[in-house]
Amino acid sequence: MAKLSDIGEREAIALLSRIFDRGQPIGLGHDCGVVEWGEDYLVITTDVVNPRTHIPEGARADQVGWYVVAVNLSDVAAAGARPLGFVAALSLPPSTDVDFLKGLAQGMEACAREFGIAILGGDTKEADVMSLAGTAVGRVRKDRVLLRKGARPEDALVVTGDLGRAGLAYAQLAEPATRAEGLEQLLHPYPRVREGQAFSESGVVTSCMDISDGLGLSLAEMAAMSGLSYAVEWEKVPLYNPLEALPPERAKEFALYTGGDFELVATVRPEAVGELAARLNEPHRGVHHALTVIGTVGK
Amino acid sequence: MAKLSDIGEREAIALLSRIFDRGQPIGLGHDCGVVEWGEDYLVITTDVVNPRTHIPEGARADQVGWYVVAVNLSDVAAAGARPLGFVAALSLPPSTDVDFLKGLAQGMEACAREFGIAILGGDTKEADVMSLAGTAVGRVRKDRVLLRKGARPEDALVVTGDLGRAGLAYAQLAEPATRAEGLEQLLHPYPRVREGQAFSESGVVTSCMDISDGLGLSLAEMAAMSGLSYAVEWEKVPLYNPLEALPPERAKEFALYTGGDFELVATVRPEAVGELAARLNEPHRGVHHALTVIGTVGK
Repeated sequence: MAKLSDIGEREAIALLSRIFDRGQPIGLGHDCGVVEWGEDYLVITTDVVNPRTHIPEGARADQVGWYVVAVNLSDVAAAGARPLGFVAALSLPPSTDVDFLKGLAQGMEACAREFGIAILGGDTKEADVMSLAGTAVGRVRKDRVLLRKGARPEDALVVTGDLGRAGLAYAQLAEPATRAEGLEQLLHPYPRVREGQAFSESGVVTSCMDISDGLGLSLAEMAAMSGLSYAVEWEKVPLYNPLEALPPERAKEFALYTGGDFELVATVRPEAVGELAARLNEPHRGVHHALTVIGTVGK
Repeated sequence: MAKLSDIGEREAIALLSRIFDRGQPIGLGHDCGVVEWGEDYLVITTDVVNPRTHIPEGARADQVGWYVVAVNLSDVAAAGARPLGFVAALSLPPSTDVDFLKGLAQGMEACAREFGIAILGGDTKEADVMSLAGTAVGRVRKDRVLLRKGARPEDALVVTGDLGRAGLAYAQLAEPATRAEGLEQLLHPYPRVREGQAFSESGVVTSCMDISDGLGLSLAEMAAMSGLSYAVEWEKVPLYNPLEALPPERAKEFALYTGGDFELVATVRPEAVGELAARLNEPHRGVHHALTVIGTVGK
């Protein structure tokens, strides 16, 4: 009999999609699901974080708490929605230190506060192994929701922020001297909530997703959903500064093919991308590389 | 250093509440959290189910799937809200049979369909131990949300359905001949979504919660939140029929003090409870004991 390990996570999700493909205004396979609510969509997303896949040894509780909220808000951002709230369902071993639980909650609260939402509730159950499930909800105008599909040929391909932080962080975990910095980079991503909302409000962004699985895989997903091609010009990719010192092949691996960065990749109408980038890159926002054109959508 | 096992699940939740007590229109500690949305509340609840606490050996995948959705919809029902959708975050061992995953999804889909909602998405991650987190969202008019507090002295105390199914089911698990029936009773609860909405619409229900931890503990929670007392008249409690054959002490233990029934307990303005009960108990609804008065709220 086939096991989950035989088919992998992606095929498992595809299997579930075939069973759940009903009553979905936008279909499945986007960063969020949606429910109609008057002129708006309620958007919702859930992500589970566990030691096997996400939490390197030595991670502080508050880092893990921030991370659980941040990865979910990143999906809300990718839909162009305003976050409304967050709930957590925590499975924890009975041997968990109470201080760890407190730190976890404080990290969750810090991330929620940063993005103007509240932790609306949760559930804590004893389990043999830690597993932290988070769910975030948000709100966006129906005609302004951002999906993984919607791009048109000649659209500009853009990313927020800089790429390769997570890749470098994984390398840093291997060295005792840099391990703490690696943990902080990996577990303290800053979801692009403001940028996602700006994309939605602009009316010129045609599709969007977060690059949590790496830019390469994200573009492959968008291509599969839109039937279009996405060409990246490597020299335009905004690299996380310390990557400039690495051999180009290594930097490329970190920036394009390593998961764990939580930037947004989006497609923008070509005639409007200049104005959008200028608006997002205004210096008073204090964010470098708020938006960079890295390529083009082809047929 | 204190461990989770030292303080228990309830104290853990209290600890989290102290950290998260911010931006909550209704406060924490109810069956759902809420976010304001125009004249309505978006209600949200999350519950995690795992083998250690909820899934007896021999449970079928579709039963587990139904259960994960049902326990969350029960909380939405307790808030008097109309369910809108559900998401699942599944941690599963790599050795999980693909057929188990399919069954799980089919059970979830069956429960969602029964209550007119869709499964809006989810996440599946490999983990060392199974842990199934579900989140349900719903909608209710702000002035009609049902909370655990709100009761007034002399209100009638009511419950939906009949009590003691889960208690008997746990006993049935111990006997090979009745184990299958016990599993079905435990894992196939029918959340009182219609009753919860009827409560909300009536405008005469002053507080409500589900009795998933047992009627006794639920009333203690309501008492703690409202500062009132709740008196149950044992002879009025609607017993699950097979319990009538048991010694009264055993029946009492099952009906009052065993968790796992998913009925609603509510308080109702005394002058209006007769009409509400008559409406809910209309025979064409095909539900026995849709509503039974079991006691009174005191000072």
